[in-house]
Amino acid sequence: MIRIGVVGYGYWGPNLARNFHRNTNFDLKKVVDIDPKRLELAQANLSGMPVSTDIRDLLCSDEIDAIAIATPIETHFDLAMDALRHDKHVLVEKPMSHSVRTCELLIAEAQRRNLTLMVDHTFVYTEAVRWMSDYFRSDQFGDLFYVDSVRTNLGLFQRDADVIWDLAPHDIAVLQTLAASPVAGVSATGACHAGSRQPDIAYLSLDLADGVMAHFHVNWLSPVKVRRMTVAGSKRMMVFDDMEMSEKLKIYDTGVSIAHGDEQGEYRMKVDYRVGDMMSPALPQKEALQTMVEHFGQCIQKNEIPQTGAEAGLAVVRVLEAAHCSMKLGGERIKL
Amino acid sequence: MIRIGVVGYGYWGPNLARNFHRNTNFDLKKVVDIDPKRLELAQANLSGMPVSTDIRDLLCSDEIDAIAIATPIETHFDLAMDALRHDKHVLVEKPMSHSVRTCELLIAEAQRRNLTLMVDHTFVYTEAVRWMSDYFRSDQFGDLFYVDSVRTNLGLFQRDADVIWDLAPHDIAVLQTLAASPVAGVSATGACHAGSRQPDIAYLSLDLADGVMAHFHVNWLSPVKVRRMTVAGSKRMMVFDDMEMSEKLKIYDTGVSIAHGDEQGEYRMKVDYRVGDMMSPALPQKEALQTMVEHFGQCIQKNEIPQTGAEAGLAVVRVLEAAHCSMKLGGERIKL
Amino acid sequence: MIRIGVVGYGYWGPNLARNFHRNTNFDLKKVVDIDPKRLELAQANLSGMPVSTDIRDLLCSDEIDAIAIATPIETHFDLAMDALRHDKHVLVEKPMSHSVRTCELLIAEAQRRNLTLMVDHTFVYTEAVRWMSDYFRSDQFGDLFYVDSVRTNLGLFQRDADVIWDLAPHDIAVLQTLAASPVAGVSATGACHAGSRQPDIAYLSLDLADGVMAHFHVNWLSPVKVRRMTVAGSKRMMVFDDMEMSEKLKIYDTGVSIAHGDEQGEYRMKVDYRVGDMMSPALPQKEALQTMVEHFGQCIQKNEIPQTGAEAGLAVVRVLEAAHCSMKLGGERIKL
Amino acid sequence: MIRIGVVGYGYWGPNLARNFHRNTNFDLKKVVDIDPKRLELAQANLSGMPVSTDIRDLLCSDEIDAIAIATPIETHFDLAMDALRHDKHVLVEKPMSHSVRTCELLIAEAQRRNLTLMVDHTFVYTEAVRWMSDYFRSDQFGDLFYVDSVRTNLGLFQRDADVIWDLAPHDIAVLQTLAASPVAGVSATGACHAGSRQPDIAYLSLDLADGVMAHFHVNWLSPVKVRRMTVAGSKRMMVFDDMEMSEKLKIYDTGVSIAHGDEQGEYRMKVDYRVGDMMSPALPQKEALQTMVEHFGQCIQKNEIPQTGAEAGLAVVRVLEAAHCSMKLGGERIKL
Repeated sequence: MIRIGVVGYGYWGPNLARNFHRNTNFDLKKVVDIDPKRLELAQANLSGMPVSTDIRDLLCSDEIDAIAIATPIETHFDLAMDALRHDKHVLVEKPMSHSVRTCELLIAEAQRRNLTLMVDHTFVYTEAVRWMSDYFRSDQFGDLFYVDSVRTNLGLFQRDADVIWDLAPHDIAVLQTLAASPVAGVSATGACHAGSRQPDIAYLSLDLADGVMAHFHVNWLSPVKVRRMTVAGSKRMMVFDDMEMSEKLKIYDTGVSIAHGDEQGEYRMKVDYRVGDMMSPALPQKEALQTMVEHFGQCIQKNEIPQTGAEAGLAVVRVLEAAHCSMKLGGERIKL
Repeated sequence: MIRIGVVGYGYWGPNLARNFHRNTNFDLKKVVDIDPKRLELAQANLSGMPVSTDIRDLLCSDEIDAIAIATPIETHFDLAMDALRHDKHVLVEKPMSHSVRTCELLIAEAQRRNLTLMVDHTFVYTEAVRWMSDYFRSDQFGDLFYVDSVRTNLGLFQRDADVIWDLAPHDIAVLQTLAASPVAGVSATGACHAGSRQPDIAYLSLDLADGVMAHFHVNWLSPVKVRRMTVAGSKRMMVFDDMEMSEKLKIYDTGVSIAHGDEQGEYRMKVDYRVGDMMSPALPQKEALQTMVEHFGQCIQKNEIPQTGAEAGLAVVRVLEAAHCSMKLGGERIKL
Repeated sequence: MIRIGVVGYGYWGPNLARNFHRNTNFDLKKVVDIDPKRLELAQANLSGMPVSTDIRDLLCSDEIDAIAIATPIETHFDLAMDALRHDKHVLVEKPMSHSVRTCELLIAEAQRRNLTLMVDHTFVYTEAVRWMSDYFRSDQFGDLFYVDSVRTNLGLFQRDADVIWDLAPHDIAVLQTLAASPVAGVSATGACHAGSRQPDIAYLSLDLADGVMAHFHVNWLSPVKVRRMTVAGSKRMMVFDDMEMSEKLKIYDTGVSIAHGDEQGEYRMKVDYRVGDMMSPALPQKEALQTMVEHFGQCIQKNEIPQTGAEAGLAVVRVLEAAHCSMKLGGERIKL
Repeated sequence: MIRIGVVGYGYWGPNLARNFHRNTNFDLKKVVDIDPKRLELAQANLSGMPVSTDIRDLLCSDEIDAIAIATPIETHFDLAMDALRHDKHVLVEKPMSHSVRTCELLIAEAQRRNLTLMVDHTFVYTEAVRWMSDYFRSDQFGDLFYVDSVRTNLGLFQRDADVIWDLAPHDIAVLQTLAASPVAGVSATGACHAGSRQPDIAYLSLDLADGVMAHFHVNWLSPVKVRRMTVAGSKRMMVFDDMEMSEKLKIYDTGVSIAHGDEQGEYRMKVDYRVGDMMSPALPQKEALQTMVEHFGQCIQKNEIPQTGAEAGLAVVRVLEAAHCSMKLGGERIKL
């Protein structure tokens, strides 16, 4: 059993703690938060779980093998580095850290000590993304044409992160899970509204080294909640709509071939709606976080590199940092 | 009665001809197309309407007051200029022409001869856009936050235009109808797939002079047909979903106010879904093209400037040309 | 070529006439209506088609082989009988007639003269119903469990028919196309509202001879337009939603097997949402009416019994009449 | 503080216990179940809550004021009667009991001892139903035309109840909350499939004393989960779709008036889709069970009759029993 402590019991921490508590490979030893009220809640939720406001109770304890960090982004580096230096395996909430440089330092430290360092890109562990990932690698999908994602809803997020750092990590992590080719360039535009000092709407354009294009629309100021990702290939197109109760994933025949024009040429051939069959696979109803926690346990025990390990986490931050810079520069393309 | 001829009986021409035929202010005299088969169809549809393969039958006739042009984009300039020089009023299919320079020449010619020159931006005349436009100008909407539009479907369009020139004019024209401020800059990215030589997917980012952002996603290679435009303001947000059978237009309370943080601050306040009432106005079921044709007739008879007149048409082409250039330059922002 | 005349140019007649006009097996000779204004419209739509207000121009003409009747229900019997007695093949709008007895007389007359007598149950000829019908007969569907249909919308229908005679023929005809077993009993309840003297909402329960149940909800007083038919079998379930733009037809794995309880037994096993894959077949975009007209032509030429021939039309009316009686008797089950 | 015990920790009990645990008017003292495994779960969920397999620990305790019963239906009477006879207030899961007679005995016992006896018709306490109820009583709704409800999903429920006793109580309870007039008659049809001995699909037709009709479709064997209730009035129509993430409740202008025919009369006036505005009110996100628990507490403390008190619970069972009988008699109408 891996003895673990959770740091941060705010928005996401309770979900992490609940899943570590349930998982038979882990022994959740303690929950740490600087806010005593959150710790009261932890105790109520987790049947008298030991709690503390002092992270040193985890760092300095011989009874702790791993630490899960679910605190604001700007604290990730300090807390994760402290944990690694005390020889703890680390799971850190996404995004890994607030900058490429700090991610690199964390990677070096984890490698030096041969510790597992994993980023909680939960979205990658959803059943829909896992299904897409398998299908993507089958010969039924064809070549990747493009990835398009829309994540919008109405909500004010008063936090350390803007809308890009909050929502885009999901899409970047999935893109990297699917695409063979690395991101070559990033451009982003965005805007602040309603008196906010942080962008609450942004558009990211990514181009991969092999020429494939990806585009992400992230938005906290939309009247309609949308969570829709399209992964289009030469043979099939996958649409993952997380707001659908059932039928979250739909696979369409691409069904397009180029007609090279006759002499006339100027009359358009209108092929509205889809032209091939569609299928929607049944997905297991397993919670993504449960899959992620299992994977973290296995990687520690077998000393394997996690699917969303430190290098993957760094690659996501590299894109986020570039998008942030691009937005400041009025949308200029930043090479990676 | 305005005596009119229609040039081009391909994809859109039949709709134009049918509406001129029905409108009591117009007398549709003749349909011209270079393809005799299309003219046969015109005769069948319009009860023996006179037809011709030679446009000079319209240009040189004293019995023609106006000419409607529904031919491929690259012919708009030649045909419209010929028509103006023969002292005909002109309605030209959108976009007005293939370049800013040719639009300017057409405007000069029309002004010199005091002729009506109008662009058929049909979308502006839909009941939904008219309702949005009125509401936008009321004090219920507040300040414009942003405009976002998605136009996707699966279809191969073998034509003279890429996906930007085909689909984006709708959104640009609506934006100009709504926003007081002109477009200051444009950047665009896009890609070609499936062996096509023309972009079949593109993303346009526009910034207006007053800092408002607009973004359009146009796509011929999507498995799902989407026609959704969001116009967000400080008090209300309007969503026009043209794929809805009923309830095409929904008006949401914006319902957001900035919470300036307490000491804690780092925990996000999650306000999912919408927080205010929504209403969906009943819209008249009038065909947009019928409204457009009526407006063209009134502008000729009263010598008034059309809502989508030559200057408006030029403004649309200015954005299209800039988007085209930006795409070639890898997404660089083009100032207008 | 079959020389045909159309009687009745009101709501449905124009669609019939247009399709006969286009079909190369038919020569549409004349349109008859008692209202001269409707005939003007027919001439405008059909390029100077000959018209008449006197049906004898069709009945007594040697140049007419067949007559299509699209008039109010209570006139079907008189007009169809006249046409048969003048040795014309007959297509009559659904439902076949207002009573079982009159249908039987028409059948006898048509058989005596060896004429084709067909009922225009257009819905049976839609691509979705044809697909369902083929699939139903394959071994993938399993045994029929039940049929459920909902047809609702908001509309005032000022006519000779109540909501049952107007909307239920679609469902009854499809049921008979699918199910091997005849209808054994019918019960119906309904109500009148808003000052109407005719029921505007009704529920029909049908039981087939083999015990299968069908239920139809027809409603003119609903705020939402629904056209959804579920055909459930032991292996698959088919849902035909005609209000979907694409994906009109969805095929679900039934995915149910009975778990016989353990000792505990009293806790329910909740299996929410669906548990198997779903697929949505691509359907050709052919107009149902075109298929129907082709079929009518073939049946005349080959002297074959139509899929929706006189016996099928009678079977529908038998159910309608029983539903009407049941409703009058407060929902009592009427045996057939 | 009302000291309460919960009996039954199967499907619904955990929700009840959680809400009593949280509510400051209640002191949850103990959870009872005959299955030790369920009690282990209760202890885990509720931080070491005292548990027991013997209900006498509640009945005979002076430290218990009220008992909440969430056990299978056929045990409701015995358990509730025991609780009342030990002078405990009682909340019993819906439906109140398995027969009218046993409900009447419970009512008599509760009245004799002046105890609160309430039925947990949770659905009545949802924010949507509360909104509908208020609106219904306002002068904006008009006269009630009809109520139609569809509750379908795919699921095997291995239990003491068939689909009517499981799903229809929701609709019957809401109907009684809204309609002034009592149910006068009930008819029901249903069927068993897939080897089940219990009906898994049923249709209930209710007629109220004032002539209004209600119809409920309940179904465990549908590929699509539907939870949609329509309450139609002469001025407005309310549609409550519980599967919608947001916009669960939509209010439509009825927008119908009867056109009394002109001479012609036989041509239908087709008014498709809706003709008036629609609005969707924002609803608080409060859990219905929380509202129900608060109400139970207030009724005990103020000795008031609950909204879903014993008489209301009996009225629901009266309809269920009648529906059960009608189904056995082939759909015959049962007078109440």
